Amino acid sequence: MGEQWNQLEQQFMDYTKEMSQYEEAIGLMFWDLRTGAPKKGVEGRSDVIATLSQKVHEMTTSVEMKGYIDELKGNTNDPIIQKSIEECEKNYNQYSKIPSEEYKEYVSLQSKSEAVWEEAKEKNDFEMYRPYLEKMVEYNKRFAEYWGYEDHIYNALLNNFEPGVTVDVLDQVFPKVRKELTNLLQKIQTSDVKPNPSVLTGEFPKQLQQDFSLEILNRMGYDFEAGRLNETVHPFAIGLNTGDVRVTTKYDEADFRTAVFGTIHEGGHALYEQNIDQKLAYTPLAGGTSMGIHESQSLFWENFVARTEPFWKNHFDLFLANAPETFRYVDFYDFFNAVNEVKPSLIRIEADELTYCLHIMVRYELEKALINSEIEVQDLPKLWNDKMEEYLGVRPTSDREGVMQDVHWSGGAFGYFPSYALGYMYAAQFHSAMKQELDVEKIIGKGDFDQIRSWLTENIHQYGKMKKPLEILEDVTSEKLNPEHLINHLTEKYQKVYNF
Amino acid sequence: MGEQWNQLEQQFMDYTKEMSQYEEAIGLMFWDLRTGAPKKGVEGRSDVIATLSQKVHEMTTSVEMKGYIDELKGNTNDPIIQKSIEECEKNYNQYSKIPSEEYKEYVSLQSKSEAVWEEAKEKNDFEMYRPYLEKMVEYNKRFAEYWGYEDHIYNALLNNFEPGVTVDVLDQVFPKVRKELTNLLQKIQTSDVKPNPSVLTGEFPKQLQQDFSLEILNRMGYDFEAGRLNETVHPFAIGLNTGDVRVTTKYDEADFRTAVFGTIHEGGHALYEQNIDQKLAYTPLAGGTSMGIHESQSLFWENFVARTEPFWKNHFDLFLANAPETFRYVDFYDFFNAVNEVKPSLIRIEADELTYCLHIMVRYELEKALINSEIEVQDLPKLWNDKMEEYLGVRPTSDREGVMQDVHWSGGAFGYFPSYALGYMYAAQFHSAMKQELDVEKIIGKGDFDQIRSWLTENIHQYGKMKKPLEILEDVTSEKLNPEHLINHLTEKYQKVYNF
Repeated sequence: MGEQWNQLEQQFMDYTKEMSQYEEAIGLMFWDLRTGAPKKGVEGRSDVIATLSQKVHEMTTSVEMKGYIDELKGNTNDPIIQKSIEECEKNYNQYSKIPSEEYKEYVSLQSKSEAVWEEAKEKNDFEMYRPYLEKMVEYNKRFAEYWGYEDHIYNALLNNFEPGVTVDVLDQVFPKVRKELTNLLQKIQTSDVKPNPSVLTGEFPKQLQQDFSLEILNRMGYDFEAGRLNETVHPFAIGLNTGDVRVTTKYDEADFRTAVFGTIHEGGHALYEQNIDQKLAYTPLAGGTSMGIHESQSLFWENFVARTEPFWKNHFDLFLANAPETFRYVDFYDFFNAVNEVKPSLIRIEADELTYCLHIMVRYELEKALINSEIEVQDLPKLWNDKMEEYLGVRPTSDREGVMQDVHWSGGAFGYFPSYALGYMYAAQFHSAMKQELDVEKIIGKGDFDQIRSWLTENIHQYGKMKKPLEILEDVTSEKLNPEHLINHLTEKYQKVYNF
Repeated sequence: MGEQWNQLEQQFMDYTKEMSQYEEAIGLMFWDLRTGAPKKGVEGRSDVIATLSQKVHEMTTSVEMKGYIDELKGNTNDPIIQKSIEECEKNYNQYSKIPSEEYKEYVSLQSKSEAVWEEAKEKNDFEMYRPYLEKMVEYNKRFAEYWGYEDHIYNALLNNFEPGVTVDVLDQVFPKVRKELTNLLQKIQTSDVKPNPSVLTGEFPKQLQQDFSLEILNRMGYDFEAGRLNETVHPFAIGLNTGDVRVTTKYDEADFRTAVFGTIHEGGHALYEQNIDQKLAYTPLAGGTSMGIHESQSLFWENFVARTEPFWKNHFDLFLANAPETFRYVDFYDFFNAVNEVKPSLIRIEADELTYCLHIMVRYELEKALINSEIEVQDLPKLWNDKMEEYLGVRPTSDREGVMQDVHWSGGAFGYFPSYALGYMYAAQFHSAMKQELDVEKIIGKGDFDQIRSWLTENIHQYGKMKKPLEILEDVTSEKLNPEHLINHLTEKYQKVYNF
């Protein structure tokens, strides 16, 4: 590949390869910390991660990097180098616009703040957490000014997670989705159909759950020669290199859904990373293009494949073969409806497919108002509870189950939450496009997912960061972000399940 | 700790800490490659290891490092800094004396040579391997000249593994050991007692072996909050930092000895690394002081604790509780004698406690003669077989079971093998010293190993590389290297087992 590169291009690619290699080592240490690293080694290991991260940070903002950007931007015939330069420039700007002293203070505050959040959540003590959250908001407002923005200060933060998506885009889409979902929710809640989740919650030994999860991963096309499945407290997928993309899951012996749908979800993330074009390996483009597109891939498999009727029709026998005897007499539709139960609840990560986006709306509206200085941190607990009551009809009785439930803000990740809801919309829009080319229901019904996986690879996975999120969306679906696909999908689905 | 350091000292310690951190990351990647890293990620991961190793190499031989050595050597009040500087100087000289082009060629040849060795061994084709081995010998002879030596060129190589131990030392000790061991072997072979190893080799499920191994590790004082046990093809122990020292073992369901004695052996290595003084963490001194002293720690636990009568008297019930029913009617002495069976065989890593050192003699004599240019690589197969026949009474019928069985030479590790035999002698000498202070048999008989572990920590572990191997040996035992301790130990032991 390198033959057609000139000397400068080669140097630049070597330079970014080295950065990717440090990131790979960091990634492995991160994975290891979560899969059984001994407790007494953690402090030292965290320092090793910090040292290597510092190295990457230095390289991201170095004079050398600036030189590559200035020399090569718009001045190369290789599209990989051009896109890599753009990616590096984005990162260069993101870090170098912040005064380095201020950035250091911020990084140090971040870990402190996350630790305080954890303790405060445990103790249900928002006042303990408040000063840290206030500082995180202040830093992010200042950073947004350093980075610059058009129209809305919050755009500067959105740009870190979902480049191209702005407040104007979200404000056109989110209220509409919210309205339709709350309408749907009302119909569901007044329906006579009451799925009975207790048919799903018998004792289910871990080993059997694991066998079933591994078989589903295998059928999805997850390459076990390029990955492995481990157990962690919080499930995740991590791409160390394109030949090593690991998945973790969590087992609840009283509820197999945690592991099975969790594995499928993380498997969707992993398929993305496993199928990025090999030509992009060890370049700055060897990763998912945005949080939202990444989430669209996990949600596609979780909701558009694994929560569908044809999927369970095809896999019910396999499920029963792996399940304990107690499941043997469960009626298929009792099972299927229970898998698709809608039930407003307080905790985002436990939410069903319908109410999940409403949880995101609460967060989006609050964080935007915070960054716009329209509300204060001290107002958050009440505002959170009010919005939860308004959109979901449930009201937290503690901040632990309310505003303090998520780690994101404690680490300063404002602008991240919208990606989750965008992931739902992207997934639905991809699903509509796929249906124009493939008989998706039939394929799922046959359990032969190769065509689905190939379509996603062809259209999305292979590009890595070669295309921006909205560019991929528009190239694949020939339209702009359109929430109707999600709304239609959910309406059709729940009409069937809840019979309205 | 840093308060009493001046600015230069602090910079030096920061510099070496960074090196240790890279080494920790490399260590974790190494561990991961052997405990389940997916196949398709290996090539990329190996390049990451190479990049970080290159970084460490650059720092080891940098102008900056030379500056620290010149400024601080003999010019600091802190003994840790003084010893660290000496360690760094040793490494600086080792690498910087070799022209960098030549070193690069060597590193590249090393991996090629190891790969060829593996294939040649598989095919039992010494001729295929010969040119590589010849080159490795040539490089090592040249390197020895670069490094310099007194009296014997081979001393330059020995110094890499066992600083302070010379050909004169070995030639005074090894022939004597060889003579006594072959005498003992003769007595054993003419004894009427014939231990029956078949009492040990019933079907023994992996899980049960693991439970028993974990319990023994626990009793040895292995800290599970600072380590973990995994399964690998080749067992090893690895210290990532003093709070993360991992052990691996191999399970043979037809022979529990592989896992049990293997775990105890690696556990002995791990106890060394877990108990190095915290003050040395992340300095150049945070590791075992030599291959031989390290081996003395694993052998101490394996042979001087876990192959003794009081050990099995105490642990036989625990063993039976973990063993399958078929073991229930084994007579204690049949069991104990079988555990201590002596049987000359072709493969070093499967050798018993007595014949192991004879395997080492074969290798030592041959590699010394190679480096001295007294023999040629092409003569090795025949010489190997002749010596095996002479010392052990068994003659390999293939080079795969002869001169090609070990990886060491293929990677250029000449001067390494003697460390194993030294480990035996050190362990025996430490054992004698310990017996002067503790009633070792009684302690082992009570299964309360804390006093043993503490004694080893007090006398050996804590110092890391603060003391050179022979310095530790003499400080602890108040005498120079003395093979009589090993000879006495083996004589007493086998007199009892074989009744002569």
